[in-house]
Parts: sequence; structure tokens; C-alpha cells
Amino acid sequence: MIYLDNSATTQPYPQVIESFQTVSTDFFANPSSIHQPGGMAETLLAKARDQAADLLNVKSQEIVFTSGGTEGNNLAIKGIAFKHQNRGKHIITSKVEHSSVYDSCRSLEELGFEVTYLPVNKDGVVSLIDLQESIREDTILISVMHVNNELGSIQPIGEIGAIAKKHPKLFFHVDYVQGLCKVPLDFKKNGVDLSTMSGHKIHGLKGTGVLYVNEGVSLSPLFHGGTQEGSYRAGTENLAGAVSFVKALRISLEKMEMNIDKLKELSAYLRQRLSTIEEITINTPENSAPHLVNISVPGLKPEVIIHSLGEKGVIISTKSACSSKQQEESRVLSSCGLPPEHAKAALRISMSFETTKDELNTFIDLLKKTIKQLKPIME
Amino acid sequence: MIYLDNSATTQPYPQVIESFQTVSTDFFANPSSIHQPGGMAETLLAKARDQAADLLNVKSQEIVFTSGGTEGNNLAIKGIAFKHQNRGKHIITSKVEHSSVYDSCRSLEELGFEVTYLPVNKDGVVSLIDLQESIREDTILISVMHVNNELGSIQPIGEIGAIAKKHPKLFFHVDYVQGLCKVPLDFKKNGVDLSTMSGHKIHGLKGTGVLYVNEGVSLSPLFHGGTQEGSYRAGTENLAGAVSFVKALRISLEKMEMNIDKLKELSAYLRQRLSTIEEITINTPENSAPHLVNISVPGLKPEVIIHSLGEKGVIISTKSACSSKQQEESRVLSSCGLPPEHAKAALRISMSFETTKDELNTFIDLLKKTIKQLKPIME
Repeated sequence: MIYLDNSATTQPYPQVIESFQTVSTDFFANPSSIHQPGGMAETLLAKARDQAADLLNVKSQEIVFTSGGTEGNNLAIKGIAFKHQNRGKHIITSKVEHSSVYDSCRSLEELGFEVTYLPVNKDGVVSLIDLQESIREDTILISVMHVNNELGSIQPIGEIGAIAKKHPKLFFHVDYVQGLCKVPLDFKKNGVDLSTMSGHKIHGLKGTGVLYVNEGVSLSPLFHGGTQEGSYRAGTENLAGAVSFVKALRISLEKMEMNIDKLKELSAYLRQRLSTIEEITINTPENSAPHLVNISVPGLKPEVIIHSLGEKGVIISTKSACSSKQQEESRVLSSCGLPPEHAKAALRISMSFETTKDELNTFIDLLKKTIKQLKPIME
Repeated sequence: MIYLDNSATTQPYPQVIESFQTVSTDFFANPSSIHQPGGMAETLLAKARDQAADLLNVKSQEIVFTSGGTEGNNLAIKGIAFKHQNRGKHIITSKVEHSSVYDSCRSLEELGFEVTYLPVNKDGVVSLIDLQESIREDTILISVMHVNNELGSIQPIGEIGAIAKKHPKLFFHVDYVQGLCKVPLDFKKNGVDLSTMSGHKIHGLKGTGVLYVNEGVSLSPLFHGGTQEGSYRAGTENLAGAVSFVKALRISLEKMEMNIDKLKELSAYLRQRLSTIEEITINTPENSAPHLVNISVPGLKPEVIIHSLGEKGVIISTKSACSSKQQEESRVLSSCGLPPEHAKAALRISMSFETTKDELNTFIDLLKKTIKQLKPIME
């Protein structure tokens, strides 16, 4: 199988699964229990937290282990909204966020919050002027993603962080799920107050993740109960999950240092070859994340192409897996001004550090053939 | 190690860990992806859901996979509260609930809901008359646990369900975390609308659980985003977690059929032997769950006893792990009318299906010695 859907999910590293297994077997006690095995589990949890903090260049108490990206985004956005609503009920986000951010904001609108959804340019990037103009007295949160999950575009996080810092009553959340281990981002240097990460996008396990919460920030929990995770996330800690997350993070960051140039080369090669196929338009702008290329093949249904490639063992996707079963056009691509026939016909090719040039060649040759076969049938 | 803290967490069955590992390796695709490996993952998820439904005697669409008991309780209570608040803002629960239920209710009080916390008798059981009298026009939810996690008392779920059914505008939620696979409960026959279960209490993995939601019930999600889990729980499905939960459930239910009488015998034996130790009072009433005995040793600090036993490899606990680091007396035991010196001095012994009489003998002998040693020092 040639797997080119790494933006939806990745194959876990064998070492990650092994460490999950070892911890589940040898450290099964409840980290909140006061007896000795509980203490050992608690010590291991603290070590995992320290390592995560170290790898992310933040403090240990700023790491909140979660069940994944959707939980992290919901906790950050609703957590700030509920905690600080007395200060104001206005939130700024963008039109191209992942559904877990977008729909969290929509749900807050039903509770009386006001949300500004910033438009984006043709490259999927928000305007800093728009952002600045939408900040109000009662704005409590800006939530803008780092790398777009469909398009790969990178938002100007540092500049947004600098603007946010001029308004001390305002918090800045970044959905970093797609960028982690592909496009470096230092939270402290970029003025980021909260940031969401997910394990299964970096060859970790599903059901694992981290929300970074700057120590100066307070938020309401989604789960009330025990005092775990600094009372931001009650419930028996998934210790094996936390340890496996840190393992995936460490390995992926090491690989990133070694391989980010390789990925850029592959990406440039992929774009160059795709650009020679006349039926294809490339949607991902230059200078995007190096692992992801979004294209449209107008007139052909993306599901049909995906299934045809899949039968030959080549796996690509349409839009976000979290919204892939909704048949309508991509909200992200429409927001970039793409016409409906392009926004409906998008395909996403997303690589990992293991992807090879040979695999890309096989994919491109097959895609060409598939388009040639399907075109006369579907036109 | 003689592990007698199975109410806090259990050792996962090796087969459970194996199935987690196999699914994480062989079915790593995102179940929401439309390509073939995504479809295979989706099929496996549907199969796991069908099996869970079958084992619990409910419908497949009534199974919501969660990250555990605390999430399940929060989702049930807040989900009903937010969804149905236009109908009324009154909730009934008890004074002896797990902190994830109790604190969820407290958090709703801050949002303008009114909560009645039913008192309990000396056995930790609510009165049906109290319950009936507290139902109002604007009551939307009753949340009462099945087996108490500290004491082992069993609430009259069937009778409460029958009362709830007389009020069609009212939903009935049961925290079944401590009862699952120890004390049978048929949701349909007992009028239960929502019920919370956790994987790691039944030799499954931490980070896994199920919320049963009767198909006639609608609730607001805690996580907005994708349409996973019938839109009640957005986010990439933890497929390996779901499959491992079902595995743990199947094995534990099989063992229950074989071993529930054995556990009752062990429990009776444990009570009988403990009752001969003059410094000890037994708090758990007769006819409680068969795996759990709560005792007090007034005058001795429970932490000291636990550490002393732990040094010799015998593991017991104080109260709920989720509140074990709070030093104050047990809310559950105080609600049963126990004086502070008893409520502060509680120990919990909780068995599994693997527990043997020999292990109990070792524990009791060691406990006797420990009390003899500590008594002169601490008095």
C-alpha cells in the first residue's frame, strides 16, 4: 500500500505501540491512588509531562493530556469562553478552521457569544488588517490554526500573536494539529496562549493528545470531577496514552530535523509533475507545509478517483476526514474563492517522512491513467 | 503483589492489550476516510459497536464510545442539561455520587440550574419517597449511580426507573462504572435512559468507555466538530480503544457468569474475618456489590496503613482515587451519617475475579499486625 493520507491519520510507530503495551502492563495502577504502584504510575506520568514540556519548549504544568485534537480544540475555545464570559463574549476565528474549531464557535453563538469568522485570501491566509479591525473591547479569544488541514497553507502565527499581545485581556489559541512535527512553531516566542496537538497525526495513537495552556491562562474544564491535569481535565489519566504520545513526539521531532528538506524536495517534485497534467489545478499555494498538496480535477468526482486509486493500493483523500462524508463542496476551498466545480473536485495528497519518490511516481502514473479512463465516462 | 484496589483500576487482560495492538497496527486508517482502508476501519468499528450493543442488550446506535467514565458522566449530565434547559432547569442526584457526577451538577448550578442532592440512609441508599417528593414540573434529569464506588451499596435502580417513567419529560441517567460486570443491570428493563461505563474498571484500557444513550433521547455534545458517534462525540474514533473495550466487556461478562458466586463467598469470608478484629468497623452494608468492602479503623490514619501494607506488597486504598488526594473526610461516608473519626479513617478493599482466599488471608493477617504495630504509636 502506498499511503498518502497522512493528514487524516498516520501509521503508529512500532515503538509507540510497544511503549503503550509496556505501560498498560507494568504501570496499570491509577496514578491518583496513594499506594506505591499508584505512586510509580504518578512518577511516570510526571516524567512524560516533563519530556513533553521539554520537547515543546514549555513548562511541565502547561501540558494538559487530552484524548485528541477535537477535545483539545473544544477545551481551549469553550474553556476560555465559559471562564472569561464576564469580560466579554466576542471571539475571532477564521473561515477555514477545522470543524472542531468552527463548530465549537458555532455552538457558542447559540449560547449568546458573537463570533467573527475572518475571510481568507486565495491562498487561504487571513489578513492581519482584517484581524486588527475585528478586535473589540469585548473580544476574549482569537483562535486561528497554524497549518490548514486541507490546503497546507500556513497562517502568520507570529504576527497574530504580536497583535494579540497588545490586548492583554485577549487569549490566542492555535490549532497546531496539522503543523506539529512538520512546521516548527515556538509557542512562547509567537505569543501563543493555548495550542492543540494530536497524537495520531504524528505516528502516535488515536485517543491521545496535548493541549498547551500557558501558565498565566485559566479556563473552565469540559470534564468536571477529579483534580487530574491541574483540574483542567478530570478523569483517570490515560498514562499509557500519555507516554505513547511523548514517544511519538520525540521520534517525529527527531525525524523532522533530519527529513524536512527531503519532504520539501518531494513536495516540489510532486507539484512539478502534477503541474504537467492538464486536467489538474494545484490548490496548495507555494511556501505551504511540506507534507501536503491539494489539487482539483474539475468534472471528475473525487470519490471515484479515490476508489479507483485505492483498488490499486494507492491511498489519497478528499478533504478533512472529519467532514469527508458530507457531500457538499469544501468550506475551506470555497473560502479561498475557488469556484464550486473546483471546490467539489478536490483531492489531498499528504506524505509522511517515510514517503519515497518511487511511491510518488507510482501515484502520479496511476492518477494520469485513471483520469484518462474516467474522463470520457464522466464528461 | 496482592492487588486489592480493583475499584480504582484493574489490570488489563493480556488479550485486551493484544487486540489494541493488532488494531493499531493493522487498522490504523481513519474510520471517517472514504478510501478502502478507511472503509475497513469503519466496518470494524461498526462490528465493535454491534458486539457492545449485543453484550449490553441495547441497540447499536445507542452505543457512544467515549474516553472513559468521567467523560461519560459529564456528557450525559451536561448533554441533557444543555439540550433540554428550555423545558426546565432542575436536576436530581444524590449526595454519594462519584465526583464526576457531583461536580458536573455543581458546575451546572453556576450556570443557573437547580440541583437537589438526595440524602442517603446509613447504608448509602436514597429513599424513593424523597426522590418522588423532589420531582418538580421543571425536573429534566435524575442521575443516580448503581453501585457506590466507595461503599459498594446498590441503589434501587429499577424502582427509580419506574418513577422516572411516570414523568415522560424526565430522563434517568445511571453511573454504572462500578457495577458493570459485577452486578447485572438491564437498562431497558429498568427504565434507564443513559448509562456510563468505563473500560479500565473491567480489565480494559484507560482512555476507553461507553455511554449508553437510549435512542429516544437527544443530548448536546461536549465536543463539537465531526459527525462521529452519531454527532454526540466528535473526533477521530479511537478504534483500537473501542475494540479493546468490547473485548474486556466480553471476557468480564463471561467471568461474571462463572465467578459471581465465588466473589460473594470471598466477600462474606472477608467480612466475617474482619468482623473479629475489634479495632475495625465494617461500613459496607450487607447485600452490597460482591467485590468491595469498606472498613474504618478509627484513630489510625488510613494513608499510614496503606503504605505499611504496600511495603509488603498488599495494595488497598482509601476512598475514590479521583478524590484520594483530598485530605478531608469522605463525602460518601459522612452522608451515611458516619462520625468524622470514622469517615476520615476509611479503607477500601476491592477484589477482582482473580482474587483468591489465600490472598485475603495474607491481607488480613498483615492488617492485624499493622494495626497492632501502629496503634501504640498513633494513639
